Amino acid sequence: MQPVLNYLDANDKRFIGELCDYLRFPSISAQTAHHGDLRRCADWLVAHCRSIGLRARRNATTGQPVVTASTPRRKGRPHFLIYGHYDVQPPDPLDQWQTPPFEPAIRKGAIFARGATDNKGQHFAHLKAVEAYHKTGTELPCDLTFVIEGEEEVGSEALMGFLRRQKRTLACDAVVISDTGMPSKKHPALTYALRGVAALEVTVRGPKADLHSGIYGGSVDNPALVLSQMLAQLRDKRGRIAVPGFYDKVEPLTAHERRQFKRLPYSESGYKRLLGVPALYGEKGYTPVEQRSARPTLEINGLTSGYQGEGSKTIVPAEASAKITCRLVPGQSPREVIRLLKKRLRQLCPPTVRLRLEDGHGADPYLVSPTSPRAEAALGALRSAFGYEPVILREGGSIPIVTEFKKILGADSLLLGLALPDDNLHSPNEKFDLDCLRGGARMSAHLWPMLAAC
Amino acid sequence: MQPVLNYLDANDKRFIGELCDYLRFPSISAQTAHHGDLRRCADWLVAHCRSIGLRARRNATTGQPVVTASTPRRKGRPHFLIYGHYDVQPPDPLDQWQTPPFEPAIRKGAIFARGATDNKGQHFAHLKAVEAYHKTGTELPCDLTFVIEGEEEVGSEALMGFLRRQKRTLACDAVVISDTGMPSKKHPALTYALRGVAALEVTVRGPKADLHSGIYGGSVDNPALVLSQMLAQLRDKRGRIAVPGFYDKVEPLTAHERRQFKRLPYSESGYKRLLGVPALYGEKGYTPVEQRSARPTLEINGLTSGYQGEGSKTIVPAEASAKITCRLVPGQSPREVIRLLKKRLRQLCPPTVRLRLEDGHGADPYLVSPTSPRAEAALGALRSAFGYEPVILREGGSIPIVTEFKKILGADSLLLGLALPDDNLHSPNEKFDLDCLRGGARMSAHLWPMLAAC
Repeated sequence: MQPVLNYLDANDKRFIGELCDYLRFPSISAQTAHHGDLRRCADWLVAHCRSIGLRARRNATTGQPVVTASTPRRKGRPHFLIYGHYDVQPPDPLDQWQTPPFEPAIRKGAIFARGATDNKGQHFAHLKAVEAYHKTGTELPCDLTFVIEGEEEVGSEALMGFLRRQKRTLACDAVVISDTGMPSKKHPALTYALRGVAALEVTVRGPKADLHSGIYGGSVDNPALVLSQMLAQLRDKRGRIAVPGFYDKVEPLTAHERRQFKRLPYSESGYKRLLGVPALYGEKGYTPVEQRSARPTLEINGLTSGYQGEGSKTIVPAEASAKITCRLVPGQSPREVIRLLKKRLRQLCPPTVRLRLEDGHGADPYLVSPTSPRAEAALGALRSAFGYEPVILREGGSIPIVTEFKKILGADSLLLGLALPDDNLHSPNEKFDLDCLRGGARMSAHLWPMLAAC
Repeated sequence: MQPVLNYLDANDKRFIGELCDYLRFPSISAQTAHHGDLRRCADWLVAHCRSIGLRARRNATTGQPVVTASTPRRKGRPHFLIYGHYDVQPPDPLDQWQTPPFEPAIRKGAIFARGATDNKGQHFAHLKAVEAYHKTGTELPCDLTFVIEGEEEVGSEALMGFLRRQKRTLACDAVVISDTGMPSKKHPALTYALRGVAALEVTVRGPKADLHSGIYGGSVDNPALVLSQMLAQLRDKRGRIAVPGFYDKVEPLTAHERRQFKRLPYSESGYKRLLGVPALYGEKGYTPVEQRSARPTLEINGLTSGYQGEGSKTIVPAEASAKITCRLVPGQSPREVIRLLKKRLRQLCPPTVRLRLEDGHGADPYLVSPTSPRAEAALGALRSAFGYEPVILREGGSIPIVTEFKKILGADSLLLGLALPDDNLHSPNEKFDLDCLRGGARMSAHLWPMLAAC
């Protein structure tokens, strides 16, 4: 291992230069005008992978190409995938960037560019670890395949088809993904759970048209008030979702998890300031860290009814609607939660209005044991690479591709994110800390022997 | 009186022709392109008033001209104003008219044209009664002044200034207004009360920007849910407004009023069909007729929060707002009701959000006794003119000009409306029933001796 680590140290400067080259491609998947840049970026990536000893190719798909790069496959050895994406978010608003988004600049120990942390820098760290193995003649204890797509920021649709078609070639023991975050450089992290999501739109319809509130008001129910009264009853005084059965299948947090969460850096005043709220709010009996990552939620994402312009309009609106999404935790399924929620809303709806309920999208929650041998291996690699005791995290959002890897390839994902909280993902002045690049490459170097031994 | 009534009968055909001439002017106050038509219409009206023996003039104002037309003033005689307006609503959508809006057509015993019932036909009936007095040499027992404005459909602003400037000339014993409705030709009506209005906009602000519901949801309150919970508590299970003090100054309905309301034609199934609701709803202990005209209300006119586009957006919205208007009944004041409502909302607002309350417009409720001598006189005139026992009505909406007559001239208004429920006010195919024109002229003829005798 030492020659590998020495190689990483010795070539640090060159790595940064190469990453800058990679970051110069404005590979914006959302904008058709940049589709040529995406292809050129993929070509650069293929050439780079070949230069470090990988067998790489640009795979055509229904959308943007997927780059694959692998070590030679040898029978009987474990096989791991490393997932990443070379496409980036649009850089707007441009005038808020201190240096141009596609002219990488080094300052304060970080590299500033669109895509630096999301995600070019993060999977580049893994490429450098593999390069170090190859160039120092150190044998990798496992087979590796990089799968680097160009559509993550627009839904990964082409990748799903690619995974299904290449199911046999991509069969693997686990997927390693560095596309999440760590709380600080002193808190390297393994993310072991993601929340799912379930969406529902509720519409309450009263009179066939908006009514004059002077002529009719008082003798007919008000759909906006009916909707408010229904929604109001979906949460109780302890901040719990008041839908019978909602929590029935929620897997409780273990004592180990709750102890681990306490190690995460957290300041109530800092968090309040970040969000700009006068006070925090959440389910009683859980900490804010748990509330936002490990407990299910019901959010109203939008409300619409009647007149929304300037001044007032004296009407009884014909209808009122709300967009609702629930964040789900391991044990819950979108279909079941939507069924329970619809049942409750039907019970709450009075006979004075008509109710329309429309299902939206759903995503399953995700959980791998944070104490399994592979999780322990990942934590070991983080510890060795960063020199701090790693933390375990649940992520509050969904990462759809993780569920797809599980569904299509049957493989669990190890989420070893290298982004810091102030990396400005999707915002102006996106950056990637050079210590995270270095730590990430060391973590990758340590990971393969530990994982292969599981 | 008989010569007057005979004159009205004998000249019926000519009257209809003259009303058609009046209705041909597209006197649309909302549209600048028609301001020339308004002036031409006012000129026609002045000429017409002069031709029937009135001293008429077109008065310049800050907006459209006000036409005044009066009998000679004689000391010691009562003086009554007759209010009307010669401006009309825009006729759109044009393709839904069976005959063009400004080419009056007679069919099914009614005259179809924009402005027929609102309001040209209604004040024209009063002009014909005065003409009959003059042309038959019958002495009017009182002085009369017609005040016919050209901005009722756009807020009557110029009229307010005119009333203040002409306060002395227009000093009067009462104002007679035919600009409301009657339930049917068998139910001639005196409207003796109007509801007022009070408007408030409520905004609840949480985080400083919309938040990602995956990353933050669960640890921060949701402004849309907070608003729903606040609004939900503004109405109790009996359909009463749950704002302490809200009903304190409401003058209770008298037994006489409630008996009279029972005489109004009403069918629950017909009313439900008209509104298109599956069931009616209102304050317990009151009939729908009372609920919509004689009881105060609180309506949510509009709701706005977060994402309102297609599909879903997984956010905790930064804020949520509701537009509220209350309809007020005699005894209540807009200022007091807004004060109570704000107080209640502040109590209901949790510390997790910031509350912003913005007052909107207000209008006082209006009430004249339905058993006063003048009201009895008006009922007598209706009875004699239509041959049916008249009903007394409360109107659910506001008519701001009525409050202004009270404030500026200190005069009560007698609302003797001639519009039928199917007259299509403000809609395509507006009409005025010829029996209402005839009955209205007879009612006006009977009214002056009865009123003058009070």
